[in-house]
Amino acid sequence: MQFRTDLAMESREMAAGLSGITTHSRHRGAIEETHVRIETEEAARALEKARGNYITLAHPGLKWCPPEERKEMARAICEELRTLLPPNGDLLVVGLGNRSMTADALGSRVLEDLLVTRHLKDIPDESLHGRLRGVCAAAPGVLGVTGLETAEVVQGIVEHAHPAAVIAIDALAARESSRICTTVQITDTGIRPGSGVRNHRVGLTKETLGVPVIAIGVPMVVYASVIARDALSLLLNDIGMDERTHAQAMDTLIDKLAEQGMGDLVVTPREVDELVGRVGRIIADGLNLAFQPRLTEEEIQLLSHDEP
Amino acid sequence: MQFRTDLAMESREMAAGLSGITTHSRHRGAIEETHVRIETEEAARALEKARGNYITLAHPGLKWCPPEERKEMARAICEELRTLLPPNGDLLVVGLGNRSMTADALGSRVLEDLLVTRHLKDIPDESLHGRLRGVCAAAPGVLGVTGLETAEVVQGIVEHAHPAAVIAIDALAARESSRICTTVQITDTGIRPGSGVRNHRVGLTKETLGVPVIAIGVPMVVYASVIARDALSLLLNDIGMDERTHAQAMDTLIDKLAEQGMGDLVVTPREVDELVGRVGRIIADGLNLAFQPRLTEEEIQLLSHDEP
Amino acid sequence: MQFRTDLAMESREMAAGLSGITTHSRHRGAIEETHVRIETEEAARALEKARGNYITLAHPGLKWCPPEERKEMARAICEELRTLLPPNGDLLVVGLGNRSMTADALGSRVLEDLLVTRHLKDIPDESLHGRLRGVCAAAPGVLGVTGLETAEVVQGIVEHAHPAAVIAIDALAARESSRICTTVQITDTGIRPGSGVRNHRVGLTKETLGVPVIAIGVPMVVYASVIARDALSLLLNDIGMDERTHAQAMDTLIDKLAEQGMGDLVVTPREVDELVGRVGRIIADGLNLAFQPRLTEEEIQLLSHDEP
Amino acid sequence: MQFRTDLAMESREMAAGLSGITTHSRHRGAIEETHVRIETEEAARALEKARGNYITLAHPGLKWCPPEERKEMARAICEELRTLLPPNGDLLVVGLGNRSMTADALGSRVLEDLLVTRHLKDIPDESLHGRLRGVCAAAPGVLGVTGLETAEVVQGIVEHAHPAAVIAIDALAARESSRICTTVQITDTGIRPGSGVRNHRVGLTKETLGVPVIAIGVPMVVYASVIARDALSLLLNDIGMDERTHAQAMDTLIDKLAEQGMGDLVVTPREVDELVGRVGRIIADGLNLAFQPRLTEEEIQLLSHDEP
Repeated sequence: MQFRTDLAMESREMAAGLSGITTHSRHRGAIEETHVRIETEEAARALEKARGNYITLAHPGLKWCPPEERKEMARAICEELRTLLPPNGDLLVVGLGNRSMTADALGSRVLEDLLVTRHLKDIPDESLHGRLRGVCAAAPGVLGVTGLETAEVVQGIVEHAHPAAVIAIDALAARESSRICTTVQITDTGIRPGSGVRNHRVGLTKETLGVPVIAIGVPMVVYASVIARDALSLLLNDIGMDERTHAQAMDTLIDKLAEQGMGDLVVTPREVDELVGRVGRIIADGLNLAFQPRLTEEEIQLLSHDEP
Repeated sequence: MQFRTDLAMESREMAAGLSGITTHSRHRGAIEETHVRIETEEAARALEKARGNYITLAHPGLKWCPPEERKEMARAICEELRTLLPPNGDLLVVGLGNRSMTADALGSRVLEDLLVTRHLKDIPDESLHGRLRGVCAAAPGVLGVTGLETAEVVQGIVEHAHPAAVIAIDALAARESSRICTTVQITDTGIRPGSGVRNHRVGLTKETLGVPVIAIGVPMVVYASVIARDALSLLLNDIGMDERTHAQAMDTLIDKLAEQGMGDLVVTPREVDELVGRVGRIIADGLNLAFQPRLTEEEIQLLSHDEP
Repeated sequence: MQFRTDLAMESREMAAGLSGITTHSRHRGAIEETHVRIETEEAARALEKARGNYITLAHPGLKWCPPEERKEMARAICEELRTLLPPNGDLLVVGLGNRSMTADALGSRVLEDLLVTRHLKDIPDESLHGRLRGVCAAAPGVLGVTGLETAEVVQGIVEHAHPAAVIAIDALAARESSRICTTVQITDTGIRPGSGVRNHRVGLTKETLGVPVIAIGVPMVVYASVIARDALSLLLNDIGMDERTHAQAMDTLIDKLAEQGMGDLVVTPREVDELVGRVGRIIADGLNLAFQPRLTEEEIQLLSHDEP
Repeated sequence: MQFRTDLAMESREMAAGLSGITTHSRHRGAIEETHVRIETEEAARALEKARGNYITLAHPGLKWCPPEERKEMARAICEELRTLLPPNGDLLVVGLGNRSMTADALGSRVLEDLLVTRHLKDIPDESLHGRLRGVCAAAPGVLGVTGLETAEVVQGIVEHAHPAAVIAIDALAARESSRICTTVQITDTGIRPGSGVRNHRVGLTKETLGVPVIAIGVPMVVYASVIARDALSLLLNDIGMDERTHAQAMDTLIDKLAEQGMGDLVVTPREVDELVGRVGRIIADGLNLAFQPRLTEEEIQLLSHDEP
């Protein structure tokens, strides 16, 4: 039964009073920025998240907001990402997930608009020479389609391409449906086993890859079981039910949902096919800005979306 | 707020004791077949469905069952459909919905495997001559993409192509998540306004098109609000809550869901991209068998999936 | 055997000295604009093109030129198109061809970026009210896939949607490979039978549809037989061969090509999948500008590419 | 200027009388099978192909032939492939090329129908246990899209997945347009630099990967320059031109084609989008049969095309 969230911010809200966690928030225009820092092993265990930094950028209207606000989000992603990137060296962007399953296609979608430059950076083009940081990209697919663990593929590429860091893009599960396609989480803890829409079997971390791994994720689904539980919880509180009956009711719910085989059902907006393209483009814009500080926004736009 | 179902069988279950409705069921192998006949205007109003016949073919394991069971389903669709088809004349298959939105792409998907023959039936091919029934197909798209009402497009085609009947394929909303991609509904009432995943604005019926309209639909989503309500209902019954408090709890739930903007969220399996292809193929197989009684299954297979 | 071209400009070059044809050209920046007017039935027969106006906009580097030059092309399309559009009334854009065949997918591709407004123009939105011209769109598919003649579908839609004019988008065949994806032809003669990459069987003209039909086409292929003939012709001229031997050589070539089954082979750039998207977007931009004179370029950009 | 072929059979025809090459042919039903063995370094240089075995399976009507003949081709691929496969160990199938460029998408297409089993072979399923050979798959993309050399990606995967052999699928260029989508070449020499529709920059061979590399390719294009040259050659022979004038004519042609920028134009059938799917499926069927000798054809069919 799935009640989990991949957002540290949501885990944190459920763990009020726990020590070993630092949180602070601020507003930047329409975007609410939250930093959660998990500092102790104890806090990490309680939240089922690794120790490290989690930055959340949330814009409740991101789905349909005008171009200028989307640019704001891309710039915010750029700024937060720059604080985590190594100053020099090539970067490898890994698009996780399954391109033929919409709610899991975010990774592949981001790669479509990424400015890939590793093979260009030594070309003596008069206007770009010396100004490109090397970026390469891979979409390793999922185990059921390739027969290969994502980690096996990424390790092999890292050993041959020698990037200074890996940036992994992933579709997440959240607890609140309002998070879907409106929130971007950036973390320096990499990808952990059991996270993501597909529940990764093996992680991508500094320990396994030998270089820093920054993970960027966007909630694409909420498990149906979470929706049911939350609706119930709201109601039982309203009714003024005592705690013990409340707990029994929850157990009953869990049994009922399991009976109906609802563990794997996800709640997602009807327009998810369109939204994944839209948010994927925002993230690609943010990555391109962060990776190429010596190019102007216009140069990046021209190179990433317009040239072959 | 969406609590509706497009399946007459489910509406019927909620309206126990209502007169003017005839129901009977039988098993054919793994498939449960249910005929619901709505006979009076009063019953039609109570169920929010048009008067007419609704045939449901349900196979709980249809999603992942072996090829032989899928063939059984195609043959069952064929048999039920034949009882509704006019004996002669061309047939127009209309694939409703939006091809770029997975949960609404069933119509387009069925057309991919449909055996289209209207332009071939007078070709003096020695082996097929005189054995093909004329079939043509159209995917009119959705209003937001074309600026045209589906009904405007289909009326125009009907007036020029003169089919003896229209068969409309549509993605439906159900009340129970177990119905998704496991149940096929066939009805002689056509497509009604307000039905379907996209909530059609205008209907496709014998009244609007001038020829019989048979609608074939498969549930692809359940509204998240339905899931929440059902979970609650099960629980409240369990707790032994009295009827008045129960009704108040439901009102509270409806308000809460509306506050959270959940009206448009849908519950769908994670694998919906794959399932729509699979069930689309089963329906196309059923249509091809029903439309071409003078061809063998092998000839249909060869022509529909293998030739350009 | 295919030696034909769909570009009036190329037909005209082959018919030097013929009367009943007016031609004039001018440069507008990097774009060469040519107007060909076929005035007499005799000239029409000689060129195998209908009487009427043919405007060609050619930019040799269009394939990979910077965004500003693509905008120039979109503005040139807009200006030429405006001289042909009726002043008032809704417009229907028809995307011809087969979306699943790259070299024939231009029509479908243009529709993706078209600003469709017919269903919006009466919405009392404070900022757009009264400023939108009604535009609707249809992609009727091809006979082999639908069993319906394109003309049957378009006639039906015209009768129900009552547009003031039809704008038909089509992929063309040219004589010179340098024309592929670099030249746009706009004509007020509609679509003629036998034209286009797929060789339309039936035309779309004012006579068949009852409203003016403007056709916009871009060469996507050259027939391999044309390439072979032209290479030969250049050479024979070089060798200084006499006219009679030259003619015999051509006959021999035609026989050889027919023997090898080369009639249906097309020459196309390796990057055609990408180019069709690029040129399709330029045309969509030009249409949107021409259709919506009361919107700014920024408003159009925002509405056409960015909103659902 | 491109006059090359990737088919050893065609190279061989152009090098009549050369020693160090063994060729023999035989018919198997509608399929013509040719074995070319390049035995000496001298012959390898002359043919611009590596020393080794090249098996060609040609069926002139493969494009549109009935299912039974396609099965024959799949079985022929299976038989030839088995003579080259190591008896034990996992196999890695590499789909080369660019999935978004039709004529280069064969590799990705084959992977769609490949039976991937490496992650399943130790699952104690009662019916399959001990009967599956481990197969994994990767589509490394092209340098321009990923910034990574294909060889870097494949080397990394080989080092982590430890396959006993690599099978690389590639789209080829041929000299004769009749070869397109009708001929399959299987070779134990791997992929050489400069081969393929995209002209690989780095090879995939036993030397670079440390395990045997079997390459399977299908011609998808002919360079337009080859067509022009061949047409000319036929004609000049016909005219009875002397050898010196013939050679001059060829030089003139090469200059003319270069002037017109025709070096990169390819000749391809109009239906290439459909053909690549069709021939990709035949190859996938052949691979599945060869890789899984302990499964029946029915079991493979069910597992590869029908299960998720």
